[in-house]
Amino acid sequence: MTQYDKLSTKRSTAVSKFKIGVVGGTGYTGVELLRLLASHPEVSLSVITSRSEAGTPVSELFSNLRGHVDLVFSSPVPEVLSACDLVFFATPNGTAMTMAQALLDEGVRIVDLAADFRLRDAALWEQWYGMRHEAPGLLEEAVYGLPEVNRAAIGEARLVANPGCYPTAVQLGFLPLLEAGRVDPCRLVADAKSGVSGAGRKASLGTLLCEASESLKAYAVPGHRHLPEIQQGLEQACGRPVGLTFVPHLTPMIRGIHATLYAFLDQGDVDLQGLYASRYQAEPFVDVMPAGSHPETRSVRGTNQCRMAVYRPQDGTTAVILSVIDNLGKGAAAQAVQNMNIMFGLEEATGLKQAAVMP
Amino acid sequence: MTQYDKLSTKRSTAVSKFKIGVVGGTGYTGVELLRLLASHPEVSLSVITSRSEAGTPVSELFSNLRGHVDLVFSSPVPEVLSACDLVFFATPNGTAMTMAQALLDEGVRIVDLAADFRLRDAALWEQWYGMRHEAPGLLEEAVYGLPEVNRAAIGEARLVANPGCYPTAVQLGFLPLLEAGRVDPCRLVADAKSGVSGAGRKASLGTLLCEASESLKAYAVPGHRHLPEIQQGLEQACGRPVGLTFVPHLTPMIRGIHATLYAFLDQGDVDLQGLYASRYQAEPFVDVMPAGSHPETRSVRGTNQCRMAVYRPQDGTTAVILSVIDNLGKGAAAQAVQNMNIMFGLEEATGLKQAAVMP
Amino acid sequence: MTQYDKLSTKRSTAVSKFKIGVVGGTGYTGVELLRLLASHPEVSLSVITSRSEAGTPVSELFSNLRGHVDLVFSSPVPEVLSACDLVFFATPNGTAMTMAQALLDEGVRIVDLAADFRLRDAALWEQWYGMRHEAPGLLEEAVYGLPEVNRAAIGEARLVANPGCYPTAVQLGFLPLLEAGRVDPCRLVADAKSGVSGAGRKASLGTLLCEASESLKAYAVPGHRHLPEIQQGLEQACGRPVGLTFVPHLTPMIRGIHATLYAFLDQGDVDLQGLYASRYQAEPFVDVMPAGSHPETRSVRGTNQCRMAVYRPQDGTTAVILSVIDNLGKGAAAQAVQNMNIMFGLEEATGLKQAAVMP
Amino acid sequence: MTQYDKLSTKRSTAVSKFKIGVVGGTGYTGVELLRLLASHPEVSLSVITSRSEAGTPVSELFSNLRGHVDLVFSSPVPEVLSACDLVFFATPNGTAMTMAQALLDEGVRIVDLAADFRLRDAALWEQWYGMRHEAPGLLEEAVYGLPEVNRAAIGEARLVANPGCYPTAVQLGFLPLLEAGRVDPCRLVADAKSGVSGAGRKASLGTLLCEASESLKAYAVPGHRHLPEIQQGLEQACGRPVGLTFVPHLTPMIRGIHATLYAFLDQGDVDLQGLYASRYQAEPFVDVMPAGSHPETRSVRGTNQCRMAVYRPQDGTTAVILSVIDNLGKGAAAQAVQNMNIMFGLEEATGLKQAAVMP
Repeated sequence: MTQYDKLSTKRSTAVSKFKIGVVGGTGYTGVELLRLLASHPEVSLSVITSRSEAGTPVSELFSNLRGHVDLVFSSPVPEVLSACDLVFFATPNGTAMTMAQALLDEGVRIVDLAADFRLRDAALWEQWYGMRHEAPGLLEEAVYGLPEVNRAAIGEARLVANPGCYPTAVQLGFLPLLEAGRVDPCRLVADAKSGVSGAGRKASLGTLLCEASESLKAYAVPGHRHLPEIQQGLEQACGRPVGLTFVPHLTPMIRGIHATLYAFLDQGDVDLQGLYASRYQAEPFVDVMPAGSHPETRSVRGTNQCRMAVYRPQDGTTAVILSVIDNLGKGAAAQAVQNMNIMFGLEEATGLKQAAVMP
Repeated sequence: MTQYDKLSTKRSTAVSKFKIGVVGGTGYTGVELLRLLASHPEVSLSVITSRSEAGTPVSELFSNLRGHVDLVFSSPVPEVLSACDLVFFATPNGTAMTMAQALLDEGVRIVDLAADFRLRDAALWEQWYGMRHEAPGLLEEAVYGLPEVNRAAIGEARLVANPGCYPTAVQLGFLPLLEAGRVDPCRLVADAKSGVSGAGRKASLGTLLCEASESLKAYAVPGHRHLPEIQQGLEQACGRPVGLTFVPHLTPMIRGIHATLYAFLDQGDVDLQGLYASRYQAEPFVDVMPAGSHPETRSVRGTNQCRMAVYRPQDGTTAVILSVIDNLGKGAAAQAVQNMNIMFGLEEATGLKQAAVMP
Repeated sequence: MTQYDKLSTKRSTAVSKFKIGVVGGTGYTGVELLRLLASHPEVSLSVITSRSEAGTPVSELFSNLRGHVDLVFSSPVPEVLSACDLVFFATPNGTAMTMAQALLDEGVRIVDLAADFRLRDAALWEQWYGMRHEAPGLLEEAVYGLPEVNRAAIGEARLVANPGCYPTAVQLGFLPLLEAGRVDPCRLVADAKSGVSGAGRKASLGTLLCEASESLKAYAVPGHRHLPEIQQGLEQACGRPVGLTFVPHLTPMIRGIHATLYAFLDQGDVDLQGLYASRYQAEPFVDVMPAGSHPETRSVRGTNQCRMAVYRPQDGTTAVILSVIDNLGKGAAAQAVQNMNIMFGLEEATGLKQAAVMP
Repeated sequence: MTQYDKLSTKRSTAVSKFKIGVVGGTGYTGVELLRLLASHPEVSLSVITSRSEAGTPVSELFSNLRGHVDLVFSSPVPEVLSACDLVFFATPNGTAMTMAQALLDEGVRIVDLAADFRLRDAALWEQWYGMRHEAPGLLEEAVYGLPEVNRAAIGEARLVANPGCYPTAVQLGFLPLLEAGRVDPCRLVADAKSGVSGAGRKASLGTLLCEASESLKAYAVPGHRHLPEIQQGLEQACGRPVGLTFVPHLTPMIRGIHATLYAFLDQGDVDLQGLYASRYQAEPFVDVMPAGSHPETRSVRGTNQCRMAVYRPQDGTTAVILSVIDNLGKGAAAQAVQNMNIMFGLEEATGLKQAAVMP
């Protein structure tokens, strides 16, 4: 019983609700996904699995879900997952690829929040992720779940690869320029700043409050796993090889990504504001802010929103794009729900209409 | 048009929705109230007034509300406010008392989030608030809006005085003990820790990030304005004079109050856990956690929840109560919405069912 | 070579400098101790041992010490430690007690920053620390290193038990009242707030930035290991049994302890300000602030200072003492250096004169 | 009397100490300067002036300086300042230029921590700072106080313009590349992240803890005042016009600047590590870290250090330089002390040898 049942008679679980399973779900992406699914009006959370936490109530691990989620983590049982309409994988990289085919064979749709199906090229994936790909045959079928690019395909998909957090912020920021063919694609710079939750919910020295607060540093400058994913998306957008320098930074906050993007325009006469406003005018979750704006990460915290602003400083030939998302929201769990809504033919914003809590 | 109208046809504003006005609303209590009202299914936000921000779109001041609130701040016009079913005052102390009678005369109900109607004793109020009370005649009618104590009266009220943040956390924590008459009411200690948002949204040196982060201090130890409010509530609960030492602290976080309460039991054989669980079993927004719990403020952030845990360390005669709320939630705006729901006869949790965003 | 040798000719290491060893030193207490010793004009850091980090340069583990400490962590070798004048143990509880006797036998003095020698009663120690005490015979000799109480004994000591962080803040705050015999010693309350560094430098879930920032909670309410240590000190001060309720809280900052202390006066006519000013007037590291002050933890960050303020709210019979220290400073490493200075007959503030960095 | 005089007899103020005055000093740059000067062995702080705080003890405004600085803020009196050997201006822009000539005429040397004398071109200065320059005749004489470029000239200077915080981090990062002539100077990108203290100590909405913590945003993208200062320095380094895109960001921490710099190499075969190590090998305050390092801002907090690391990601033709300083340290007050040391012929690191407090 949830807390509000104290007041009202138990809501009948409508027969027509979609049955949802979550594999994993003990990390930050998982708790965010559970929070969103718990208040989603068209789905019913059937099962959540975790080998390590089997037997633990979800609300014991995540105290914010007390009164909202009644489920207990359970060991994964194929028959239970097979009875779902859709299964989310909120697991470490390398798990979904071992279970996906069996579920698809049972008619279960899948959204993988990890990286297993994001790259089309299995060899490239193996190089960056340092393990053998167990389901290379599914890579062609998998749809990259960036609705602003692949909405139609997502609607038809059985298997959706939910984009990474940096890739979402960076691709949405660069896409209009690259699609319009107005910049030098060989000299793109993406300077990205992330909150610490991007590092996940696991005991580690580097993300202790005492190590990561009151400080800021770049990391993985020689090469971050999200680089090939971003590059794949940008190259698809412009149809040419792309030269991208991507530098992620760890910043002292919990959530949020701020991608500051630099591109060199062929000519200085581009109406960036118009170009971006036009590209995203029909998008419910991309907000091109008025000229002169500086989007704040907190304005999208806990939401599926991406906000951006575009500049040509000193009216020159350098374009500067500011693109902010919540790394756990549009960068992970909320985008996964958006993809689910599209797959089920629901209104795309269902369950994703909350405004950010601010301050 | 809100952002989601991009997707769907415009929702018809049902005729039966309650019309709501907000006076003030440029502070942190205001933005939280607007966020809650914007997604409340049974009300329609008609007008929000601010002399200083008249003409400014709400979403320009509060970027989290872009796409959620279309209103523009306007100068207060009596006729417009009079057309509302209920008006919230999210104003500095001393404003509501000058406007309340006129609105009541027009049949408008009022929830005041400031302190104007919290104390029954006008002289005491004037002593602590340092100004003349302009509507002492309304003090008797005003209902103190703590639903866990005054639910029935709130349902009948025209004028509700929404409790202060510290008073909510402290009273809910002490009430079961005092009502049961098991403690020495002359030696109560309330050590309260608040996030910085309690100081409000105004330019000030002491609440700059550079002054208030990475540090902690007590303040107002000689006497805080919430002391007489708490004392009034506790004395009503036990029917005797109460001796309370109340020390508030400024802590380096945005939201949250953690009240740590100490009381000396007459005898050591009290089943505190049972006493508290029983007192609050029917309350949708008070969560008495299992024995051994340590509630975290983040678990209630952005919500109307109060969570608490109770202890007798070393099985002695000192009771320790841990009580956490969001100072802007159950300590202000969300409790105001709870009161509104009760006043309108709605399900009490309507519009207040979101779980906290965590981490 | 340190960085400044680039400019100057190498300072001759004066023959008369005291040779110092550090056992452990990979934690937060350790890095703070190394920072203080590196700039101490009368000592020379000879060796620092760590089994787990043997071979790693100190400056690689602690980037702030690049250019300041040239040493490399080494495995502990008895002969090397025996050649020191004094050895600090910055180790987990239970290490110093296994090595102390051998070092003492070689004429090496010891300051233990862990808890091994803090309690006089071995049985009590074993109960709270959950392990067998390996050197109960040294407990009588060990001097509790609170200079404001035991300065003379520290000067003569071979073995100093450096106090815990909470015990330092709480004892310094309560001592004047208890020594003066003006309060009920059976109803003391210590509500203490600590920064996260008190939990140490080790990978753990609960102290991740994402778990511990933007939140506040009490912990160990049923009983914290520092309770018997505090009680022992307070009972010595007043010569009677003491009833203390001690509730520690985890607060979202790196460093600092704010102890808010409550005591019930026998009579209300005590001149608290005078009592405290008088008690600590000769103490270089206890600052009784002017009446009406609210000490901030940041004002003592990185220092050996304790600042306090005293109140009788509403001129009543409850005394409220605010006592702040840096848990890694006066609460650990800096107090250890103060003890060393006393043991060596140096000016007590040598190497401890830096003001806090603020903001 | 400072606190340590409790212990020792009063130190005789050596006749040979340099007499120092500070004009302004109520801001964050001021308190940091006072902290450094208070422990500097070769100077004596004679006077600190502030019209607004005249009569207030320094230690009342800045509690970290209790026991360290005995001075009281006083109204500026020309005769008192004229008796100083050197005067620091820690004032808003536009103050030093009105007082400098008179002090120089009296033989007083000056270090201005504001922007008045940073740009050589008065017209350009007036354009960016929005006011008339009152002492254009001094611009030619003023020496730009970046010791790594102008050490000799600083030693001879009467008037030193202390660099801005961003300009220090960005110039030190770009200089080796530009001096070596290995990059395209028309396509430089400086993405800089600053702590909030860069915005100064003044009541303002945007830098409240509730506004600036748990969020990140760019600001002043169309043009920041530090742009022309950086450009002037870079053009001097390479002898050619420079095209720089500079985007500053506000990040949720108190201190620190992390400049992430991007430059496109003419050819990919540059040994960046060697180039930088060689350029700065004799510099006491620039630490070129080993290959593969990611400097953290906290490692330089409270110090005069700049740490940097250099990369060519994927062995390509983009150079990425990571350069961190403390904006109030090497970016303001500590660099001012370094300049003073050079001007007085003292060892350059005098009073600047403290390691950062960490964590």
